[in-house]
Amino acid sequence: MFIRNAWYVAAWADEISAKPMARRICNEPVVLYRDATGKAAALIDMCCHRGAPLHMGKVVEQGIECGYHGLIFDTDGACVRIPGQDRIPERARVRSFPLVEQDGFLWIWMGDVEKADPADIVSYPWHNDSVNWPHKHTMYPIKASAMLMVDNLMDLTHLGYVHGSTIGGNPMIHVEAKMETVRTNMGLKFTRWMLNSVPPPTYTRAVKFEGRIDRAQMFEFVAPGSILQLSAADDAGAYANGLTERSKIQFRLYHGLTPETDTTCFYFWSTANGFRPEDSATTEQLFKEIAAAFLEDKAIVESQQARLTELGETDLVDITTDAARMHMRRTVDRLIAEDSREMAAE
Amino acid sequence: MFIRNAWYVAAWADEISAKPMARRICNEPVVLYRDATGKAAALIDMCCHRGAPLHMGKVVEQGIECGYHGLIFDTDGACVRIPGQDRIPERARVRSFPLVEQDGFLWIWMGDVEKADPADIVSYPWHNDSVNWPHKHTMYPIKASAMLMVDNLMDLTHLGYVHGSTIGGNPMIHVEAKMETVRTNMGLKFTRWMLNSVPPPTYTRAVKFEGRIDRAQMFEFVAPGSILQLSAADDAGAYANGLTERSKIQFRLYHGLTPETDTTCFYFWSTANGFRPEDSATTEQLFKEIAAAFLEDKAIVESQQARLTELGETDLVDITTDAARMHMRRTVDRLIAEDSREMAAE
Amino acid sequence: MFIRNAWYVAAWADEISAKPMARRICNEPVVLYRDATGKAAALIDMCCHRGAPLHMGKVVEQGIECGYHGLIFDTDGACVRIPGQDRIPERARVRSFPLVEQDGFLWIWMGDVEKADPADIVSYPWHNDSVNWPHKHTMYPIKASAMLMVDNLMDLTHLGYVHGSTIGGNPMIHVEAKMETVRTNMGLKFTRWMLNSVPPPTYTRAVKFEGRIDRAQMFEFVAPGSILQLSAADDAGAYANGLTERSKIQFRLYHGLTPETDTTCFYFWSTANGFRPEDSATTEQLFKEIAAAFLEDKAIVESQQARLTELGETDLVDITTDAARMHMRRTVDRLIAEDSREMAAE
Repeated sequence: MFIRNAWYVAAWADEISAKPMARRICNEPVVLYRDATGKAAALIDMCCHRGAPLHMGKVVEQGIECGYHGLIFDTDGACVRIPGQDRIPERARVRSFPLVEQDGFLWIWMGDVEKADPADIVSYPWHNDSVNWPHKHTMYPIKASAMLMVDNLMDLTHLGYVHGSTIGGNPMIHVEAKMETVRTNMGLKFTRWMLNSVPPPTYTRAVKFEGRIDRAQMFEFVAPGSILQLSAADDAGAYANGLTERSKIQFRLYHGLTPETDTTCFYFWSTANGFRPEDSATTEQLFKEIAAAFLEDKAIVESQQARLTELGETDLVDITTDAARMHMRRTVDRLIAEDSREMAAE
Repeated sequence: MFIRNAWYVAAWADEISAKPMARRICNEPVVLYRDATGKAAALIDMCCHRGAPLHMGKVVEQGIECGYHGLIFDTDGACVRIPGQDRIPERARVRSFPLVEQDGFLWIWMGDVEKADPADIVSYPWHNDSVNWPHKHTMYPIKASAMLMVDNLMDLTHLGYVHGSTIGGNPMIHVEAKMETVRTNMGLKFTRWMLNSVPPPTYTRAVKFEGRIDRAQMFEFVAPGSILQLSAADDAGAYANGLTERSKIQFRLYHGLTPETDTTCFYFWSTANGFRPEDSATTEQLFKEIAAAFLEDKAIVESQQARLTELGETDLVDITTDAARMHMRRTVDRLIAEDSREMAAE
Repeated sequence: MFIRNAWYVAAWADEISAKPMARRICNEPVVLYRDATGKAAALIDMCCHRGAPLHMGKVVEQGIECGYHGLIFDTDGACVRIPGQDRIPERARVRSFPLVEQDGFLWIWMGDVEKADPADIVSYPWHNDSVNWPHKHTMYPIKASAMLMVDNLMDLTHLGYVHGSTIGGNPMIHVEAKMETVRTNMGLKFTRWMLNSVPPPTYTRAVKFEGRIDRAQMFEFVAPGSILQLSAADDAGAYANGLTERSKIQFRLYHGLTPETDTTCFYFWSTANGFRPEDSATTEQLFKEIAAAFLEDKAIVESQQARLTELGETDLVDITTDAARMHMRRTVDRLIAEDSREMAAE
């Protein structure tokens, strides 16, 4: 069960070229490509003639040409050529999906086309600011539902257990972090404060801290699958009146979870270096450390999915640190219910 | 859904020896082997004692011996020995399938035994004529239904799209080929004329044509799964009154599609060199070029099967070039219906 | 369908350490580990918080710590720590399974806990007698049901067919072996006498026999999955009055079959050298020969399982040599029925 009337990350913009690419999104086979003008498009990945996948075809002047018998479709999915006949029947078309290129992402809409409003797309301007926030990005395919990956990011107490040997450090710093939570229409924001704490090894390596530090992590979940994260740290006392405009350590993470099937998803993520932007080695190092840590998340969440697929979630016990996760789930459930109501009303 | 009362290619005759071989045909596990006299036989691949597959046993004097507890079966499937007891119960037998060796094929009958008439088997004498039609053959396992592979051969407009870089050449030559079609009781025959056309690179390499050429392709589909093909080419004008007895280029292809399961099949095919039969390099080269081209068919048809398995065929749109394919499908549907009627009448 | 109220081998004792190990037993995911005191324990392999498998966690002072959010469970499955909160709710617990370490095995009970009586566990003292019966052991994962593997050991006529080139030798020696069978409450015992027979090659290599030999094999099946085997051989005439206390060749095999799923199992087996116990090369050689032979059983039984999964057992024909196997099956069916009756009565 997915939220259908919503924008999902279909791909990084630089993943898609004139060479068509297949990707399953919300359980539908989609072909992503750029037409002869460079415009990115998304169609159902199946020719309406004999069902061959369009990603096995190629982009030609008039559109995407099926690799089996040569039918050509434009970016709206209309057939514009059938070899061997002049008349093109009305029915000769394939489904097309609204697709918007913005901030280095390709955003796709899998629901009712008339509800697709690009104004609803999450803005992430830091991807466009290579001077102050140079970034790197990639995608991990995950054998777990998008929801389990969002869960993972809503309960950061996992840091000390899953990432003990990488970015986590001492578990109790994370368990005892002070949480400030604000609910929003499309999700929630929370800040985790870890004031006057021992710096984790990775921070000490990056910056020569003299003693204890103040740390803050700000997260915003925006349904259906975006999490915007800002992490910052400075000398102890610096955050006495809240986060300062600039910190000795500050970086941003974008997390985008897009369902592939009910039990698999794509994890699009980026790291942006905001504290030593002129130093490309720091930008690289940040990406490298996060890449290793996220493989740890992938491993635990995939094994969690296997258990839940087999045994279900009904006997699970919620605990105190699940508060943000539970609010996120209620938001998602509400939006799925709205989808259903709208479909019923039509 | 398969035609059951029909002969299918079970194997190339030279694939089968005294060493038993397992092959699933029309969804049934079959063991193929030659008994002590060299006679090829086909039994259900499961011992009637404890269910072990007979292909794990071996051929002995009296028949095929199960590799688990030593029961022996003759080529009719009757148990002729049970170690440890003298009496052999009536029920101790396994299903046997009519199997006929002819023209280098082993033909199997998966339907009602009393309807199996070897006279109905497709004749392919060229396999026996190594002087005038030296041939080579092989089998490709295909992850698509036999019907999708027959479809592929009934609409040759795919040549320019699937085989553009191999045997196809310019798409429009194939799209605009003149078709002459004749319906038959067990399928159809059609000839494709491409007169006064530019020779494809492979033809030019084989024969030093001076200019344009006349090309012809003759196809005959015989249900359930045989397609007999003759391809020929000569100097432009040569076919003004139809195909000549001998052409500068002429070769035959046999295509045999045998269902393994509903969505997989075996593709038995051969190439016979009829224009330079004394030159074994030409025989080899012909086989090699076709082998590469058929891998292209395999790739597109397998990906087509994946889409049809998921999304079905109901929304597909037929086009003009589907005419032969549609007639073929109607023939197959009629024969499946006859199977059902006969079974209901029994 | 398994017998549930019974002890199964969960693991060799030396397989389990403080590093948790996942193993599916009777279709349930189990985690096996030793706590800080070295005591072996078995819990359901799924945390009650968010469903992560406990085998991805680690053993700490208080118990096994979930690798996701740090909950800790003791060997009874009670949660003893939840990071971030003081109160531990009653429901925060996972299922634990009775586990007994004995004779080098870890025995697990998958049924009603109150019926678990360690006195019912099969005794196998030879594993503790490294002076007179030095042994070696291992486990083979088998893609067939535990029942098919027990079947295999109840009809030894398979020796000449499956193991003809290894430990089997001439098939007819095994087919004509004289069987003495005694039924027991939990299964049956049988002895196979092969008096005055030609020694198999492996025996001749081990002992310089002058001529023919007397051989005996004693098997005891104890439900649900243990088979205790003693094999012995001496000069012809030696067993005129039954087995002697000591034979020129004598070795013991333990076979333990534990269901993993309905169609897969674990085959725990050991070989104990009782005829040249001081010679470690003999102990090694015995293990090596049996290891090769049991791979032959694995191959035939796995292929048998594939056929029975597809085509069922209903049309199979029992033969004379199936007597012991059929009695074993009746015993197992009775115990499964008792399980059901007890569950219905509760």
